[in-house]
Amino acid sequence: MKKLINNPTAVVEEMLEGYVAAYSRYVRQLPQNPRSIVSVNTVRPGKVGVICGGGSGHEPSFLGLIGKGMMDGVPVGNIFASPPPDPILEVTKAVDAGAGVLYLYGNYAGDCMNFDMAAELAGMEGIRVETVRITDDVASAPKSEEERRRGIAGDFLVFKVAGAAADLNYNLDEVVRAASKANQMTKTMGVALSPCHIPQTGRPSFELGADEMEIGLGIHGEPGVQRGKIKPADEVADDLLDRIFADMPLSKGDRVVVLVNGLGSTTYMELFIMFRRTAQVLADKGIEIHRSYVGEYVTSLEMGGCSISLMKVDDELARLIDHPADCPMFVQMS
Amino acid sequence: MKKLINNPTAVVEEMLEGYVAAYSRYVRQLPQNPRSIVSVNTVRPGKVGVICGGGSGHEPSFLGLIGKGMMDGVPVGNIFASPPPDPILEVTKAVDAGAGVLYLYGNYAGDCMNFDMAAELAGMEGIRVETVRITDDVASAPKSEEERRRGIAGDFLVFKVAGAAADLNYNLDEVVRAASKANQMTKTMGVALSPCHIPQTGRPSFELGADEMEIGLGIHGEPGVQRGKIKPADEVADDLLDRIFADMPLSKGDRVVVLVNGLGSTTYMELFIMFRRTAQVLADKGIEIHRSYVGEYVTSLEMGGCSISLMKVDDELARLIDHPADCPMFVQMS
Repeated sequence: MKKLINNPTAVVEEMLEGYVAAYSRYVRQLPQNPRSIVSVNTVRPGKVGVICGGGSGHEPSFLGLIGKGMMDGVPVGNIFASPPPDPILEVTKAVDAGAGVLYLYGNYAGDCMNFDMAAELAGMEGIRVETVRITDDVASAPKSEEERRRGIAGDFLVFKVAGAAADLNYNLDEVVRAASKANQMTKTMGVALSPCHIPQTGRPSFELGADEMEIGLGIHGEPGVQRGKIKPADEVADDLLDRIFADMPLSKGDRVVVLVNGLGSTTYMELFIMFRRTAQVLADKGIEIHRSYVGEYVTSLEMGGCSISLMKVDDELARLIDHPADCPMFVQMS
Repeated sequence: MKKLINNPTAVVEEMLEGYVAAYSRYVRQLPQNPRSIVSVNTVRPGKVGVICGGGSGHEPSFLGLIGKGMMDGVPVGNIFASPPPDPILEVTKAVDAGAGVLYLYGNYAGDCMNFDMAAELAGMEGIRVETVRITDDVASAPKSEEERRRGIAGDFLVFKVAGAAADLNYNLDEVVRAASKANQMTKTMGVALSPCHIPQTGRPSFELGADEMEIGLGIHGEPGVQRGKIKPADEVADDLLDRIFADMPLSKGDRVVVLVNGLGSTTYMELFIMFRRTAQVLADKGIEIHRSYVGEYVTSLEMGGCSISLMKVDDELARLIDHPADCPMFVQMS
C-alpha cells in the first residue's frame, strides 16, 4: 500500500484542512470542532437544513456535496466509521434556521445509532429533526426486508432531491416526503474488482482473486451476493440491471435517472462502457433516461469497481434532480 | 489487469458511444466519424472555435471538457495516441464560425504532426487556424529548452483560459495571446506511484518498486527526474513545489491558481492532503491563492500519483479562470 499521506492516524484531519483551505468560498469548520463542516452561504431563515454524513473515504460524498441546492452541513467520521453525536449535533445547531433539519445517511448500524442520539439531543434543544435512511443497495437484503438494506451510491441521488427540495422552500414534512420517495424509487447494484486499503492498517478491505469480481460487495467490504470470474462489461451491466429490474419493475414509457458510479480506481473509460450498455438496455425496454450521471460520487478510497443506480422519476423528482447545485465537488447548471 | 471492458480493441469506440449517450445535451458525434466530437450548443457566429485533443485515457480530458466556456470540439485518438488529421479537420470545419479556430494540445511529437497537418488542410479550405502547444511539465526538459517540454495537467488551466476568452468574444489573435500567456504562467510537477494498464496489451505503462515513487514521470510513462523511496506527503509536496519555484519565481503578493490533479487511482483524501501542504507553503511565502481545483482533470487511466500545477495570474487570467463553464465533466458557476 503506497499512499500520499503523512501520519496514518491524522489523514481525516489533514484532508479536512486541505478541503476547507481549497474551498473556503463554500465551507468552513466550526470553531469548536474541525469535524463539523458547514456551508458558508446556504443557511437562510425558513429554509430546512439538510445534513448528510457518514464515514470518511467516500469522497466526493459526503463533504464535497455541501453547497447551494445540496447539503447545508456534514459531520465527518473516521474512515468508514460513523461520526459520533457531538459533531452531528453541532452541525444541526449551525444549520437550523427555524424550519427544522433533515438527516440523510446510508442505513448502517453505527450511523443510525449516532444520528438518532444527536436527533434526540437536538430535540431537547427545541430543534425538530427528521431522518431518512437510504436503502438503495439491492444486494444487501431481500425485497421483503427492504428496510434492512444499506445505502450506497444511490445516496447521491437522494441527497440531490432533498437538497433541491429544501432550496425550493419545501417545509420539513415536504422535504422528508420527497427524500423518502427518492429513496423508494432508487435501486443500486454494484460490482467490485479490487479492494481499497485503510491507511491506519494498510490492509485490504477484502480479498478477491486476480481474475475475480463480486456482485453486490459493499462499499466497506461487506460480502456480496455472487463471486465469479470477471466477465465482459456488457454481461456485468446486464447482470446488475436484471437484478434491479427484478426488484423495481419498470415499463415502457417510464423515466429514470441513471447513475454509473466509480468506486475509486476504475477509469472513466470503463464507466462510460458500462453506461453504454445501460443505455442500450433501457432503450430496448422503451424506458426514457431523464438525466445521466457518470463519474465518482460515492467512492470507497481506491476500490475498483462500479455500480449502476436507477431512480424512477415522476415530474416532481425530475424537477428536483434538474434543480441547480453549486458545491465544491459537484456543480450542475440546471 | 482487471477491467470492465468488452473488446480491448473497441474500448475507445464504446467509451464514445456511452459518453455521447450520457451527455447528448452537450455533445454529438459527427455523422461521418464517431471520433469527431463537437458541442451541440457553443458554436455561434463570430466566436472563435476552440479545439483540444490528444489520446484517449486522460478523461475528463479531453472529451469531457466540451461545453460553454470551454471547448467547442475534440478529435479523439486511440489510447495515449494522437488523433490523425481527419477527425481534427472534421472538427475544425464543424466548429469554425467565421472567426477562425484555435488548436490546443500538449506538446507531443505525434500531436504536433497531426494537428499541423490538419491546420494546413483547414487553411486550404479557407479556415484560419492558430495553435498553442502546452508545455507545463517542468520535469520534461530544462528551462533553457522550455519549448521542448510536454503538456500534462496544466493543459486544463490553459483550456479554461482559452475557452473563456473565446466565450467572451475575444478575436483569434486575442485568444491566442491569452492562451499563450496562460501556458507561460503555468508550471506543473508530478509524482507517480503506480502504473496504468493499456487494455490492448494488459501491460503496465512503467515499472516501479512496491515502496518507490518517481518525481516527474510522464502521463504516458515517460521517464522522470528522480526515483526513490516513497516519502511523507508533505515532503513530496515540498519537493514538487521547490522545483516549480526554481522554474517560475514567485514573490510575496503574487496570485496563483492551484490545481492538484489526481492521475486515476489516487484518492481524493490524498489529493486534499497534498493541497493542504501546498496551501501552507504558499501562505508562508505570502502568495495568494486566487482559486483552487482539486480532483481528476487529466488522468492516465488508473495510474497512481498526482501533480501540482501553479498558474501565476494577472487580472485578465484571473477573470478568465473565474468565467463560468458548463461541460459534461466540468461545471463551474463563476
